[in-house]
Parts: sequence; C-alpha cells; structure tokens
Amino acid sequence: MSRFGMYVKFTAKPGQRDALVNILLEGEASMQSVKECELYIVNVSDTEPDTIWVTEMWANPEAHEASLAQEETKASIERAMPLIAGVEAVKVRPVGGKGV
Amino acid sequence: MSRFGMYVKFTAKPGQRDALVNILLEGEASMQSVKECELYIVNVSDTEPDTIWVTEMWANPEAHEASLAQEETKASIERAMPLIAGVEAVKVRPVGGKGV
Repeated sequence: MSRFGMYVKFTAKPGQRDALVNILLEGEASMQSVKECELYIVNVSDTEPDTIWVTEMWANPEAHEASLAQEETKASIERAMPLIAGVEAVKVRPVGGKGV
Repeated sequence: MSRFGMYVKFTAKPGQRDALVNILLEGEASMQSVKECELYIVNVSDTEPDTIWVTEMWANPEAHEASLAQEETKASIERAMPLIAGVEAVKVRPVGGKGV
C-alpha cells in the first residue's frame, strides 16, 4: 500500500484566515491519535494574506478517506465552511525523504 | 526565527522523471546530517507523469539558503539541470501541526 500525500490550499474569506487556521489546528489535535496520519502541517503564506496550505501525509489513501468520515472531522469541516472562499488540492505520492 | 517551508514543483523533460527523482533522493541523503532540515520529501504525481514535488521544511530560511550554497548541493543541481523543463516553488510559513 503506497503512501498518500496532499497539499491543500484554502483561500479564506477576507479577514477570516486566522480563525480558519485555528479550526485547522484543532483538527490537527484530533489527528494526533491517528497513527496513519504521518504529517498534518498548517502553513500560512507571507505573500498571500488569505491563503493557508495544509501539508498532509498518510500511510495510505484509505486512512485519509476514513478520517474524512469521522464525526470529529465532519463537525470541524462544518465550522470551517463559512470561512472558506475556495479549496484546491494537489495529490502526490511520496517516494522517499527525510523527516518521516 | 520562524520556520520555513516550500513545495517545489519540478517538471522533468519527457522520460527523465525517474532519473531526476534519483538525483533528488541523493540530495536527501546529504540532508540527513543537516539538523535544520526538518522535512525533505520527494513525491511523484499519479496524474502528471513528468511532475515531481519536493516538500521541504526548515528550522529557518537561513538554513535553507545555506544548504543551496554547499558544494554538494551545487553539484547535485548541476547534474539535475539537463533533466529539468521547469521549476516552480510555493513558499509557506508553518504555524503548527503533527509529525514534525
């Protein structure tokens, strides 16, 4: 089973970036107990004030799918939705590296 | 000093992706001794056959700059150049997360 990675770009509604960062960081707290979630890093951009990038890496794509179906994740997405203007994702397949 | 992150998208010349992946993974081996390099993950795309994404995270931007000035890195870039059709980078600032 190959690993699964994703860069998720969130564009927040104007003025809502930090509130959205906080919701995403709460999501991270719930990932701490999910062994298959190997990376979940919330990043901001110094050049695009409404942009947030989340770097995710999972032991396999199924573990990522399963996380989206959890009640905690669904509640978090529901709270985040009103703050979000757009979402794009780049899906990747990790083949090697340092730090994981 | 804040952390520094980057998603670097390499477009390989046709048929050269795997050779370029190998050079990038050799680069990773030399990062193993660089404490300030917290993540250096080489990824491929299952939908874009010539695309490679490298996920990097550094303790600070200066450590990343310093790595580019090292002889080992410069030699590696020189070997990679003929295989590369294009490079783009997304710079980010990590604010929190799991796995690092």
